[in-house]
Amino acid sequence: MMELWIGNRNYSSWSMRPGVLVNHFQLPVAQRLVRFDSFEANSAFKQTLRGVSPTGKVPVLLDGALAVWDTLAIAETLAERFPEHNIWPRDAARRARARSLCAEMHSGFTQLRSHCAMNIEASLADVGARLLREHAGIQADLNRLQAMWADALRDSGGPFLFGDFSNADAYFAPVVSRIRTYGLPVDASVRPWMDAVWASPGVQAWVTEALAEADFLDFEEPYRTQR
Amino acid sequence: MMELWIGNRNYSSWSMRPGVLVNHFQLPVAQRLVRFDSFEANSAFKQTLRGVSPTGKVPVLLDGALAVWDTLAIAETLAERFPEHNIWPRDAARRARARSLCAEMHSGFTQLRSHCAMNIEASLADVGARLLREHAGIQADLNRLQAMWADALRDSGGPFLFGDFSNADAYFAPVVSRIRTYGLPVDASVRPWMDAVWASPGVQAWVTEALAEADFLDFEEPYRTQR
Ligand SMILES: N[C@@H](CCC(=O)N[C@@H](CS)C(=O)NCC(=O)O)C(=O)O
Ligand SMILES: N[C@@H](CCC(=O)N[C@@H](CS)C(=O)NCC(=O)O)C(=O)O
Repeated sequence: MMELWIGNRNYSSWSMRPGVLVNHFQLPVAQRLVRFDSFEANSAFKQTLRGVSPTGKVPVLLDGALAVWDTLAIAETLAERFPEHNIWPRDAARRARARSLCAEMHSGFTQLRSHCAMNIEASLADVGARLLREHAGIQADLNRLQAMWADALRDSGGPFLFGDFSNADAYFAPVVSRIRTYGLPVDASVRPWMDAVWASPGVQAWVTEALAEADFLDFEEPYRTQR
Repeated sequence: MMELWIGNRNYSSWSMRPGVLVNHFQLPVAQRLVRFDSFEANSAFKQTLRGVSPTGKVPVLLDGALAVWDTLAIAETLAERFPEHNIWPRDAARRARARSLCAEMHSGFTQLRSHCAMNIEASLADVGARLLREHAGIQADLNRLQAMWADALRDSGGPFLFGDFSNADAYFAPVVSRIRTYGLPVDASVRPWMDAVWASPGVQAWVTEALAEADFLDFEEPYRTQR
């Protein structure tokens, strides 16, 4: 059976994307948690990944001797291996657009990502309000995200970005989590989609396990000293 | 016929990737240059892209009313549309690894990318030596790149990363260009591959057109005042 090695579900936004795919489509892929202790070379995290993940990062998908790393490559590989599930939209034009959104996410939105680290368990609306005042780039990132979501939803009619739940929704699940944690403002037009993503079974399964984690990791907690 | 809108070939590293694919596989895709004047909202560049590229960036692939943006989505879409060419390696395991390398490139190597902007026409070895001393992250990026290239070449036997020329080689062509421009040191084990990429017809066609461009754009030239 293939294995998907992931980090702490509460903190690891990159792990969440393929983890949600595996959950949602009930793929025969075992998830293995590699706890974050630190990202230093001598950490248990790095030791465990040595010889397994060529980047020393999670997520990594293992299929026998083959390691597939980096979220987008993992998604494409799962889509190829399990064609019976529509991990990408079945329609070619929608699929091309879904890939555009995911690729843009993969390399972009650095302000939102760096200032509003994923932290599913936390409620940091006051911090979010301050960050929005201090870093104009966060609002710019939010504007672009909402525009792309609204465009996709207008064309597809929803409830998910391209109709049925696809990798595009999984790809933005960590962003939905950040918006919730930091109480960031979003337009009413995208709220129903955000709620649908949050309520979807694959996301809920991930969130339930994230909330059951007891870790409080200082290096992932720029805004809190305890839970 | 599909159109690929690109930026200045001398400077636009993101445009180069799909441009090289189109050249190499002689795909029936017309390349249309949208000259960089500036990236301000009122620039001719942004005006031309308005209503065409949802991000206001290049590259963007147009297929009738469908716009596909972001390099990695464009590559996947071209691979789907032209299955007779092996834009990705034909073997599933190699394909998964090729996608891993490209996805890692897509979101990583920020030190190399930000300090050593692509500039095909320039020779900046002195600048490169200084940058290496000042920014340790550049060497770290180079180390990881060389490790991933050497791994792939060892497994495939070359001459390209996964045997025949594929999107993975196109994806690193701008990095090969940066290494040349800034005279960055690389291990002898990856030199033959770098030379093969540089000499490949799709890259050479791109470079020839880049060298024929007469633009000198201040905002793309942190290290020179003229050619
Ligand atoms: N672009 C990579 C990013 C992976 C990544 O940064 N993972 C983090 C956890 S969310 C990690 O393992 N960090 C360890 C480190 O930076 O050393 C992907 O898409 O998988
Ligand atoms: N992740 C995007 C990046 C595209 C990109 O940044 N393109 C540059 C030219 S190389 C651009 O159009 N910049 C205009 C701007 O930043 O406003 C991709 O892969 O296509």
